[in-house]
Formats: sequence, C-alpha cells, structure tokens
Amino acid sequence: MQLPRHRLYVETRLEPGAAHVCDSAQANYLINVLRLSAGDEILVFDGRSGEWLAAIAETGRGRCTLAVGTPTRQQVEGPDIHYLFAPLKRARLDYMVQKAVELGVARLVPVRTRRTQVARLNQNRMRANVIEAAEQCGVLRLPEIDDLRDLAALLADWRPERRLVYCDEQMGAGDPMLTLGAIDPGPLALLVGPEGGFDDQEREMLRAKSFVTAISLGPRVMRADTAGVAALALINAAHGDWR
Amino acid sequence: MQLPRHRLYVETRLEPGAAHVCDSAQANYLINVLRLSAGDEILVFDGRSGEWLAAIAETGRGRCTLAVGTPTRQQVEGPDIHYLFAPLKRARLDYMVQKAVELGVARLVPVRTRRTQVARLNQNRMRANVIEAAEQCGVLRLPEIDDLRDLAALLADWRPERRLVYCDEQMGAGDPMLTLGAIDPGPLALLVGPEGGFDDQEREMLRAKSFVTAISLGPRVMRADTAGVAALALINAAHGDWR
Repeated sequence: MQLPRHRLYVETRLEPGAAHVCDSAQANYLINVLRLSAGDEILVFDGRSGEWLAAIAETGRGRCTLAVGTPTRQQVEGPDIHYLFAPLKRARLDYMVQKAVELGVARLVPVRTRRTQVARLNQNRMRANVIEAAEQCGVLRLPEIDDLRDLAALLADWRPERRLVYCDEQMGAGDPMLTLGAIDPGPLALLVGPEGGFDDQEREMLRAKSFVTAISLGPRVMRADTAGVAALALINAAHGDWR
Repeated sequence: MQLPRHRLYVETRLEPGAAHVCDSAQANYLINVLRLSAGDEILVFDGRSGEWLAAIAETGRGRCTLAVGTPTRQQVEGPDIHYLFAPLKRARLDYMVQKAVELGVARLVPVRTRRTQVARLNQNRMRANVIEAAEQCGVLRLPEIDDLRDLAALLADWRPERRLVYCDEQMGAGDPMLTLGAIDPGPLALLVGPEGGFDDQEREMLRAKSFVTAISLGPRVMRADTAGVAALALINAAHGDWR
C-alpha cells in the first residue's frame, strides 16, 4: 500500500480511536491547500507516539476533524545530541533550525555570546520552523527549544556527563573524526559560535572546561549555519544514528 | 599587523606592481558601501595567485583603481572534489552554491535528473554567488561552473578514475565513514539528487557503474541542500583537507 505523502504534526495524543480537531491553520492547509475532503487520508504524528494514518472525518467552515486510524511507524527517539548555537538573523536562523531538525537533534539551545548579533528570539517562529521541518523530513521526535541564555551561565550549570563539542576556528589542523572518535559514547552537545566566532576570552573559558572537546572543520572559514550542518553530520557519523 | 577584513575577487592577474581598475559594482562597494578612500587597504585575490594587499590608489565618479602591494597568502588549491547537484529553486540554489564554495569544492556540476524541477540555470547568478561566498569565507580558488547536463549523458562520458559518491535514500543503514574510508585516495565527486530523490531507473543506472559508490546519510529524509552540505563534510573529513 502506498502511504499518503502529507504529514501533519498534531498536539492530540495519538492512539486508536483518537480524534484530532484541527486548528484553523491546519484546516486551511488540508482543505484549501491540499484540497482534501472527507475520507482522504494523511499521516499524523504527535512527537511521542510514532506516526499514524488519519482520515478526514468531518469538514466545514474552516473546521476539520481527523479520525486516527492505524499506526504506520513506531516512535523513534533519534540521537541524544543537543545543538547550542548563537542565533542568527531571520532567514539564516530559520534555515539553521530547519537543518538541525533534519539532522535529528534532541534539543535546540540558543546561546548568547559576545559577538552574537541577535538580542531576542521569537520562540514561536522557531517552533513553527521545527514543526515544518519535522513534517517534511519524516522526523518523529520534535526537538525541545530552550530559552536564550548567556554562554557563561550555560557552562557554569553544565552537567559534565554530556560532552560538549565546539568548532574552534583557531585550533589549526586536526582530524575531526579522530577527535570525535576518541569521545566515549554518551550524551553529546555541539556548540557553534556566531558569525565572527568566539572571542579569546570565550575560547579560554571553553578550553578550561574538562567536559569540552574542540574540533577543527578544516582550513576554510565557514558561515555559522554551514558549520552547524557540517559538524552535526560528523557527529551523527561518529556517535549518532548514521552508523 | 592586523590585515584588512574586506576581501575582493578581481579578474586582474595579481603580481607586484599590478593595478586593478574596478568595475562599477566594485567601485560602488568600496567607496559607497565600505566608505574607503585613497590609501585604504583591502585584500584581493584572483583565484590563482593567492591573496594580496591592495591600496585604493585613485577614486572619482564611480571609478576606483587598486594598487597591488605585497602577498598575504599563497595560492591553495583545495580538495579535488566535484559537486554534482540537481538545481533547486532560486533561494535554495543560491544557498547550495554558497555552501559548496565554503566546503571547498573544485567544480560545480549542475545535473538534470527526472525529478529536477528547474529547467534552466542562470550561470551569472551562480557565478555571483560563488564570488560572494569566496570573498566572505577566505577561499582562494573559485570552483568552475559547468553547464546543466542530463545525468545519463554525464555518466556516459564519465572518466572512471574520478570516483562518484552519491547519497542513496533507499540503501538502508550503513556507516558512511566506513564506506568513504574504503575508497582509494584520488579525485572524487559527490552527486546529490533533487527534492524527491532519484527514481528507480536512475538508481539502477548509478548502481550499475563500477565508478559509483552509494552512501547512506542515516534514517531521516534530508532536503537536498542539507544532504549536500552533510555529505561534503563527510567527504572532506575522509578524503579532503579536514584531516
């Protein structure tokens, strides 16, 4: 059987016989954008109960109810990787959040560093980007989104059993896969600095922590969003679920 | 000595005593955007002669001449990796091209596959994105840009000494670093399909070629531009200049 192509994230807990009442954006998407009608099926997921078939049960005047049918995929948690990043401006931040979801991170942790250019974060916009990327890319677990915090405070509270890998543009050559391969299995986090990198004091603060590992991403300077995708790929290959 | 932060790609061959007459866009950028004036210095590169200091020698009415001074960096060629990709729509294509430059590829090879949604390519726009990314990211060698070609024609003419790695969403689990590590050193190419992936016939055609290696990028479906950055990161770590 060919499964439906469209996937929708819902906040209703999915179980046999459950019904989901769409909000107006979802109803508009299903009825006016996808042009679905009663009886048509889509895939739904709630971030914790896997993926299910659901049929459009009732529509009318911007309303739409979905009847949850049978499960199509069991819940998969994905790798225990937190992604710490200095927020970028609008479009690049959207992009960075979407990419992190595609790469399967468990938690998005925005970090304020000295050269971070963005003072405030729109959590709703980040959440919308997370959901959109998860719907498109078959992800079942939505990453949590933390509040924006200062790097120093974050490091002060750090639980050292989660090793923190960061991309250090000034460390010179060094094989990142060798460095990552030497890390014991366990929870991980990746930290990528802002455009312009960390300043010397931040770098010293990071280097002084026993739970921190620096990696090099080669001789070229990369933009922060590129470095994030590249480093998450290496981490997934070394310790995540790409092996 | 602190080097200037701004870098400009120029088509004049750089050598001691050379002068570069800026085109109007460059003159506008230097004089009106950066607000530089006679005597101010920037970095210039021509894609083949390394990076040089250059001073603004003369300005006036949209004109600007640069006097080439001393070299600051020797030419570096970067890894011999060709990047074959199904072109995406505007913003995502811009992004994909910029990222490929940051990751140091030697050649951009746009490929038409059955599910490719873009029929034509704006080569000038691609070139402008290449130059902008190279200026920003300290890259010295600009990748060549090929014309758009059909996948079948490209494979028929392929020189088998360049191994072609492609991302196969249907191959199931498999450690991509193990697969890449088993490839002999030498010229490489990466092929990333369009949104929606390759069709079965294309996949069969690829699998039948002795010069082709398939890799898996894990259990999540990634967008084409994400897959490109992720796979180029793994290839740089396995065979490029990140070791």
